Order: sequence, then C-alpha cells, then structure tokens
Amino acid sequence: MRHNGTAETSVRHTAAMHLALEPHHDGSPLYLSDDAPSLDDVVTVRVRLWSGDPTDAVWVRTTYDAEPTFHQARVVASDEHTVWWAADLPVHNPITHYRFLLAAPDGTQRWLTAAGVVEHDLPDTFDFKVSTHDPAPAWGREAVVYQIFPDRFARSAAADHRPTPSWAVPAAWDDEVVFEGSDPRTPLQFFGGDLDGVVAHLDHLDAVGATVLYTTPVFPGESNHRYNASTFDGVDPLLGGDEAYARLAAAVHARGWRLLGDLTTNHTGDTHEWFRTAREGGPTRTWYHLREDGGYETWMGHHTLPKLNLADPGLRAAMVEGHESVVARWLRPPFDVDGWRIDVANMTGRLGALDVNHETARAVRRTATAERADAWVIGEHNHDASGDIDGDGWHGTMNYSGFSWPVWSWLRDPASPARAFGRPLPVAVRPGPLVVRTLREWAARYGFRAAAQSWNILGSHDSARIRTLTGSAPLHRVAAGLQFTLPGVPMLFAGDEIGLEGVLGEDSRRPMPWAHPDRWDHATLATYAALAAARREHPALVWGGLRWLVAEDDAIAFVREHPDGSLLVLARRAPGGVIPLPAGPLGASDGADGVLATEGEAGDLQVADGVLTLPAGDAGVVIWRLR
Amino acid sequence: MRHNGTAETSVRHTAAMHLALEPHHDGSPLYLSDDAPSLDDVVTVRVRLWSGDPTDAVWVRTTYDAEPTFHQARVVASDEHTVWWAADLPVHNPITHYRFLLAAPDGTQRWLTAAGVVEHDLPDTFDFKVSTHDPAPAWGREAVVYQIFPDRFARSAAADHRPTPSWAVPAAWDDEVVFEGSDPRTPLQFFGGDLDGVVAHLDHLDAVGATVLYTTPVFPGESNHRYNASTFDGVDPLLGGDEAYARLAAAVHARGWRLLGDLTTNHTGDTHEWFRTAREGGPTRTWYHLREDGGYETWMGHHTLPKLNLADPGLRAAMVEGHESVVARWLRPPFDVDGWRIDVANMTGRLGALDVNHETARAVRRTATAERADAWVIGEHNHDASGDIDGDGWHGTMNYSGFSWPVWSWLRDPASPARAFGRPLPVAVRPGPLVVRTLREWAARYGFRAAAQSWNILGSHDSARIRTLTGSAPLHRVAAGLQFTLPGVPMLFAGDEIGLEGVLGEDSRRPMPWAHPDRWDHATLATYAALAAARREHPALVWGGLRWLVAEDDAIAFVREHPDGSLLVLARRAPGGVIPLPAGPLGASDGADGVLATEGEAGDLQVADGVLTLPAGDAGVVIWRLR
Repeated sequence: MRHNGTAETSVRHTAAMHLALEPHHDGSPLYLSDDAPSLDDVVTVRVRLWSGDPTDAVWVRTTYDAEPTFHQARVVASDEHTVWWAADLPVHNPITHYRFLLAAPDGTQRWLTAAGVVEHDLPDTFDFKVSTHDPAPAWGREAVVYQIFPDRFARSAAADHRPTPSWAVPAAWDDEVVFEGSDPRTPLQFFGGDLDGVVAHLDHLDAVGATVLYTTPVFPGESNHRYNASTFDGVDPLLGGDEAYARLAAAVHARGWRLLGDLTTNHTGDTHEWFRTAREGGPTRTWYHLREDGGYETWMGHHTLPKLNLADPGLRAAMVEGHESVVARWLRPPFDVDGWRIDVANMTGRLGALDVNHETARAVRRTATAERADAWVIGEHNHDASGDIDGDGWHGTMNYSGFSWPVWSWLRDPASPARAFGRPLPVAVRPGPLVVRTLREWAARYGFRAAAQSWNILGSHDSARIRTLTGSAPLHRVAAGLQFTLPGVPMLFAGDEIGLEGVLGEDSRRPMPWAHPDRWDHATLATYAALAAARREHPALVWGGLRWLVAEDDAIAFVREHPDGSLLVLARRAPGGVIPLPAGPLGASDGADGVLATEGEAGDLQVADGVLTLPAGDAGVVIWRLR
Repeated sequence: MRHNGTAETSVRHTAAMHLALEPHHDGSPLYLSDDAPSLDDVVTVRVRLWSGDPTDAVWVRTTYDAEPTFHQARVVASDEHTVWWAADLPVHNPITHYRFLLAAPDGTQRWLTAAGVVEHDLPDTFDFKVSTHDPAPAWGREAVVYQIFPDRFARSAAADHRPTPSWAVPAAWDDEVVFEGSDPRTPLQFFGGDLDGVVAHLDHLDAVGATVLYTTPVFPGESNHRYNASTFDGVDPLLGGDEAYARLAAAVHARGWRLLGDLTTNHTGDTHEWFRTAREGGPTRTWYHLREDGGYETWMGHHTLPKLNLADPGLRAAMVEGHESVVARWLRPPFDVDGWRIDVANMTGRLGALDVNHETARAVRRTATAERADAWVIGEHNHDASGDIDGDGWHGTMNYSGFSWPVWSWLRDPASPARAFGRPLPVAVRPGPLVVRTLREWAARYGFRAAAQSWNILGSHDSARIRTLTGSAPLHRVAAGLQFTLPGVPMLFAGDEIGLEGVLGEDSRRPMPWAHPDRWDHATLATYAALAAARREHPALVWGGLRWLVAEDDAIAFVREHPDGSLLVLARRAPGGVIPLPAGPLGASDGADGVLATEGEAGDLQVADGVLTLPAGDAGVVIWRLR
C-alpha cells in the first residue's frame, strides 16, 4: 500500500493489482516506433511505468553482434498515473534482441523482459525481438481464417456423378466417421465433399466473418485427407479438378477474401509420381532418402509417406525454388492461392544430422513473394517454433503451444472424452496464473510480431474439437473469445462455430450438417460472428499490444492497447466476484464502454475513487473499450 | 507433512526440505548412461524421485527432427527413500533435447527440466541436452586453470637488459597501475614481466594446485595487454621471444601440465602486418571490413582494433583453417600450446547481417584437433553463449553469466568500490533463492556438459578482483569454494589466490608482489590449494552431477553426485542456524564425513531420526563426503 499524496497513488493498490501495475513494453505501436525496420535503422522503444514504481533509471540492453550493449533511456512523458521512458535502439542485427534494466534507489535491479519483470539475471531467452525481415501481409494479420477439410465440408450435385475410387470406403453424408484404434478405414472413409460444395456455402463463411479460406490439401492422394499426394501438378478430380479450384479461387477473390493452400514439403505419398520414379532408379531417386537396404526414410515411420530430401537441388527446384516450382505455380492461375500453410513445417528438411529447414523455409518464402508480393506463409509446428519463425522463412506458425494448449489447460473439462494430441496425456487442467505464465512465455519466445501473425487455433483437423474439450457451450465461447482477442490470427476449423464435436482429429472431421440446422449451436455461431465483427472494428484486436491485468485461478484479464483505442478483455471460466483495477495506470480514468459479451450484456464501467471495478459474473468473456 | 509409515517418510519434511526432495536428473553418470554418444545411439536417462513423490508415470519427451516425441519410463530401482525411473532415449539429432513429463494420479502434470521442476507447459528453453560432438578433453575438464597476464606476473633478470619500446610508459614493479578514466597511459604502462619470469615461478602454480597455464596474448603488440597484435607469427621479443616461449612450454609440459594460448580471431591491432597491407590495397584488403569512405569496421569503435572478415577465404586459411593457419601453427613447436582461449569469441565472425560465427568456431576446433587430438578450445563470451558452445565449435566458455555474476550478486559488499563490468551498474546484491535460480537457468541453457567444461571464473584481467568485490577474506574464500565445487573448471587470475585487489580490469592487473610475501593472504592461498587438492581427490567435483538442496537468503547447499562418492557442499555468506535435510532421499543415510572447510573444521555429520542436520556456522564453505 502506498500513499504519497497524488490522486492516483492514494488509491489502495492491493496485491491483486500487482500485475496491472507491472512495468510494460511490447512490440505494438505505443511501445515500438517501427516493428519492421531496416538494418541500421534506429527505433525508439518505450517503457510504461506506474507513477508509484520505484524505478529511477532505465536502460535498454541489446546485443550488438552478440555483445551486450546498454543505451540509457530518459523520461519522455509523465502524468499522475504513468511515467513513460524511451530509448533509441540501433537495429544492428537482422533480429535484434533487447530488454530493459530498471534500477531503483535502493539498489534493486530488475529486468523487463517479454515474459514480464524478472528479478534475477536470466539468459536472453525472453528478450524482446525486433525483426528487419518483412512482416506478414496486412491481409493475413487482419484475417479470420476458416479451415475446410474438403472431403467433409460440402458436396455439390456433381459429386453424385463421380465414380468412387477403388481405394475408398464410401460413406453417406450423415454417416458417423470411423476413427477408433488403427481402423484401416479411417483414412479411406470417403464422404465426397468437393470444391463446388465449398463455393456453394461461402455465404456461411461470410456469416462467420471469415476473410481467408484455408483448405487442407486438394492434390490427388489415395486418402480422404490427401496429405499423401500422388502429384502436385493439379487438383484431385474427385474434388472437381483444376476447373473447380479455379471457380473456388475466383469466388473467394470476388468477395475480397484470400485463399491459402496446404502443401506438405516434408514428404509425399508413396504413390507420388516422383517417388515411383525414384524407386525405379530414375532421376528423382535423390529426391528422397532411399537407403541401400531398399528402405527409405518416412514421416514418423509411415511407409506410405516417404520423406523428401530438401538438400537435393533437383527437388528444391521442383518443389520450393523458382518460378516453376510447386510453391510458385500454385500462386498463379488457375489455382491462384495467396499463400501457403506448410504441413509438418517443423520437420521439413530435418533428418538427424541434416538440417536444411531454414534454407527450405527461406526458399518457400522467397519463391512465394516473388510470385505475389503479399504472399503469406504459415508453418505447422506442434512444439517450439521460436527459432523457425519471423525470420526470412515462415511468417508465423499454427500456434498450438503458445495458444491452444494453454487455453485448453484452462478450460478443459476433466471429464471430457477429448483425447491428447501430441502427448501421451491430455493437457493438464491448470489455474489462471499458470496459464497466463504459459501464454506469456510462449509469446516472449516467439516475439510479439511473430505471435501476432501466427494462428490462434482452438483445434484443427488433427485435434479434438474445442466443444468436446470444454464440454459446455459457454466455455466453448470463452475459448472463442480468447481466440479473437489475444494477439494472433483466429483460425477456426469449419464446424467449430456451430458446436461440432470430436474426441480426436479423425473424429473432428465430421461432415458439416447442412441438412440439420437444428443440430447447430446458433448462439455460438452468433458469438463467432460478433467476435469477428469486433476484430474488424477495433484495430487494437489486430495491432494492439498486450498488457496483462489479472491472473486469478478462474479469471484472467488483459488490455489490448492501441493509439486508436484500447480494449479491456475479461475472461472467466467459472463464476467469480468483482475485480478492482487501478483505473489511472490502466489508462481508463474515465471508465470503459461495453463492446461485447459472450453471455449476457457488456455493461459500461465507471470509475470510483480511482478504481475501475470489473463486475462479478459467470463464465464468459466480456470486452470493454477504455475511455 | 507426510506420514505413511515407512521409516523415511515418517520424518517431517518441512518446506525447507522442498528443494532437496525435488525430482532430479542431470548429465552426470548416475543419470545419463553416456554424455558423448554417437548419432543413432540409444542412451538411458534416469530420474530420481523421492519415495513420497506422488508421480506414478514418467515419460521422457524428446524432439525428433523438431517433432515432440514421448518415450515411457519404467521403475528400475526403489528403496524406502528413492524411486529410480529410466527410459531409453534415441539420440536422433546431433544435439538431442529432452525433458521429463511427471504425472500424478490427481491429474497433475509437471515437467522436469534442466532448470528444475515446472508446473506449466514451458518452451524448450530449459530442456536437457545431450551432444554427439566430442566433449572437451579430460585434461581440460579436470583442470585448475591459472591465468597469467605476462606483463604483470614476473620479470626475469633478462628483462632488465631489454630496451623499453618507444610506445611504452615504463613502470617499476612496485608502481601502482594507472587506470582511472581514459588515461592514455593505461594500455601503455609497461612493467616488463616476461616468460622466463613465469618459468621461474611455476612452483607457485604448483602450490596453488594449477594444472593448466593460460597466458593472455604473447604476440607483439603496441600495448601491455597485447590484444592488438601486430603479427601472429611469433612471440613478442619483450617477453623473450619464441625461445622463451619454447622454454615455458617445455617447463609446463615437464610438470605434466598443459598450456593454453590466447588468440583474438575477431580483430587485430592496426599495426598488424595484414592490416597495413590491406590499407595499402594489397592482397589482404578483403581480410578486413574496409569501407568505401576509407574507414573500417572495428571492435566496439576502437580504431586501433580493426575487425577481421572471417567470411574471406584467404583470411580463413591464414587464421583458422588448415595446417598453416595461426590456430594450427601454435599447436606445434616451438610454441606447442595445447589449445586456445579465443578472445571475443561471441563477436567473432558476426557483423550486422553477416554471421559466420559458428563456421569460424568449427574451423578453429577442427584445425586444432587435427593438430592435436585432445586440443581444448574455450570461447570468451560475456553474455548468453548457449547457442555457441558444445556443438562442434567452442567446447565451453568463460562463464561470466552462469557463474561469475550470480556468485558476485550473492557475495558483493554493497560498499565495495568494485565497478561494473559489461553493464552500467554493478551486479545487484541478491538473496540465495534468486542466485540459485540464476545458476540453474544458465546451467540449463548451456547444458550440463557444456557448463562442466566451461570456466568458473571469479574475475579476470577484464574485471574487478573478487577480493575487492567481497571486501572480506572469508567471503573471498566462499567465492573460491563455489568456484571449485560447482560444475565447471576453476580458472583463477594470478594473484586472486593471495588476495590481490582491483576495482576494475585494468586495476586488477597489478604486478604479483613476489618481493612482499607479507602482503600475501596466506590463509586464502592455503584454501585455494586445499580446494584444488579436493578436486583432484574427489571425482564428484569434476564429473559429478548437481542436485540443489538449500536456497536460503544466506545459505545455499548442493550435492555433487557420483558413483565413486558424492559430496555435499554448504556455502554461507553470513552466520546462520542449523539446516535439517532428509538423509535418506539425499543419499546420506549413514551421515557424512568432513572433507574441507574454508573456515574452521569440517566435522562429521550424523543422522538422527532420518534427518541430516547441517550445523550452524559463520560465512564459509564446508564440504562433506556422503556416507
């Protein structure tokens, strides 16, 4: 408790307010003058301190060719609530690291890092980062991405006239998906969704608020998931072929939206023309990792998925490098995709002592942007992508580690039948403080920009459905609220918005029940639409910073700060009482206007005695705009 | 508090015992079957749990080509105190990351990382690491390194007959060093120590217990520090020239010791023959970073230190690559060094967007080991070397960040005149828990083996002296005790052992007062000798693991575990009371035998009621051998 006579600090700042009073910096416009500088530029970095903070000297510490270097900051603005420090930061290396040293008169030295304030001399793991490489395109960062698994989204009438392929196990649209154990039918069960089916339902995407359509692979492949491509030269005739894809691209672009393809650079199917030629000793034999014993390297031991050798110049030219590569050709008509989601991006180019992952990512990025200057490239990564993103390769990642798992761990119903993905146990159920710590550490590792241009996913075709995981519509909407309000690009797997269920990836690939609107969760659909609208209307949700305010077991809150208006977001996983916050340091001296609530109404908030009190409430997310 | 009826768990395990009961793994023989495996080997990793730990399932999680992969562990041994789990870990990548997932029946999931047990899903920053690259030579890991700054260690009679060079400011041996401000005399003050002076005092090194002599540069250079070499072709005649160096090498080797040179690969002096030729437009002009405007890149803006361009093949051949390179030639007679300390290793090969640091480190290592299979290469790094060591480049680093600064922050006298090194403020004075956390995080970042083959330094010719920093002989000996007992190779700057003082690097370069034994701190010298003897006698101090037991404000304790006997080390920075520890889980059911105390006597310890009680005591370090 502090009393020093100013209006602000006469307010009781309780322990619960601690987080809200923490010194702050992030990679958003209020704090970093340029998040995409050129080499040798000097950017200005700013730190926000509460006026009661004991700090009396601040330095920004960077590493100059890996040598620690300090630049002193000065006070550039202050009022009764807040003191702003600023320093010039030379951008000497392509990815420049920095953090702040905060000194107090009593000799205390603290570090302000991207994971928060730390009182010991930690390694540079959680340093802030500024990258001189081009950011993701604005259309990507601003997007709401809608993922479609083509076999399961929608069938056009034409699908009825296509013969079922010999490998397939035909299914009717309302059949249940087969997924238990290692049932051989799982990858073969064929529902026959196609691209004209997608075209026919673009109004639904519009209703959700999507602006980017991402489809899992459309290459021919002897499975319903098509990740085992047999060629990259065209679109599976079972989906309608190249012409249908061209119709889809045209329809998507006509709405002002964008289209992303899905390309596996790590492996092909064993039916792929390249692999067949390789096995016959043909010119592509060095494109794979064929062994002397007749075997070959695969993806995770699956013999149907031979691993590509991206160290081979021939393969690189065919796949990722130059105007005639697969990466480039699909960015041109008739396919006309606007970028790629790269499957298994983490393993691509890596095999034991061989590691050409970054060279591969760079080639994909270079090739894509040569074709289309504003191409977007996202790499799938199921673990720690920190070394692999926001350089000159993948712009960002599918952020399982830094978004999905911490959100799951906060919201998982312990009794849910949802199964684990990527680990032997379901994610543990954890309280808010641990969840916030997780979110902060991953965001710090990735860097503000990289996290903001990565995908916030609540699940995908590879995981359980969020609805099944949470076991409740309101908690599902809490998850959606976080998906659209935390930094990152929301990507939803088609069907999430209507409450489809699934206990694991294969089960989550249930066909969209177009014929059964009674089975839809229309309330949740409306919430998605409202969240997407909020994201369009409030630049803070796309471009704003992230300052944490509250991390209680059952409630977390943060502010997305932006010069054009800041939003306060409160998420509860269970009913809870009021939460007082220091209005002045928060930047809400005049209160806050309700924007959106996933349950009930978002009322306006008034300030009393310098305190902004978040109201008691049930599980749900509420968004206010700070006045 | 737990009571479950077994002899062990009926002991009260208080909060103070928490750390001692933490699940444990490290890179030592008890826990890792092979710390230098070959690619595709399978190693066994073991986890030690207290018998009261709730864990009922353990997995080792590794990353296989950057994909998280889990291998289940099984219980391989247990007794009333301890349960050992083990798993097979395939070594798939050259540096294989791993950590352990510990699951309990109540759904709790914890991660055992190299920085300790963590309750949230953190990034892989603190994963354990096992490297397939060759470890440092055993002679290096077992060493006690003694650093000599030749101008200040000892003068032979021959020195009196050498003319003082024109650049020098002559000084008599008992003169004070000049160091205040940017006095131009600081680098020029010439005391005239030479190599035959070193030879004459090798008995002193023997008394300290040194086994490796490391001298700062002996190349001609127009300064007393000789880091601004004017040639790499021979030894400064002011030091006695090549012949004197050969005498030194022979004398060192005759004692069974080793000799390390000091090479700056980052820059030369502006008087260097290569640089003169470069400035004249000669064949070495691409060996530096000359600019169009006539300027050139330097080390930190010092125009006398032009930066080398290690991307240039000509320079690489001359400097680091192949049999005729500087790196190689000095490993042969007449110089005959056993390895190198590489100056400014962190910045070497790095300049803005250019980064050939790892290529350079690899070349140095490859060249050195081609000349001498057991060569040792240590890189100077004043910050986070985690990406730069224990691969195929530098074996380890001068561990300022992971050893010096945390030890300084625990032991610094707030009133000490010792000045900051590498930062704008002296390191903050911090309590034991923050210091232990710092030590653990850096050790985790570096990896067990890399930390163990790096140098534990309390200071160097670049920093204040530890005696000045602590302001007290007993606290100096606490620092020395940690230097010899924490994982890492003790490297002491000549004079530390007799209590020389210095407020910053230049001041610390005071001549050894051979003529004034009355000024020596003989008690501290005896402590260094005893610590070196303990290191020789107890493999645990060189090869043992590190398990933390106590982290109180003024007391820290740990055990160095080894199959041939484990040692318990208690360090206090201030008087303190008894500390009870759980004898059984600690591995000391039969008590412990006193080995060494930096103050007073190390008495034996008995166990009563399952508790091993560390005695109350004053500031100092005590070592016991567990029974």
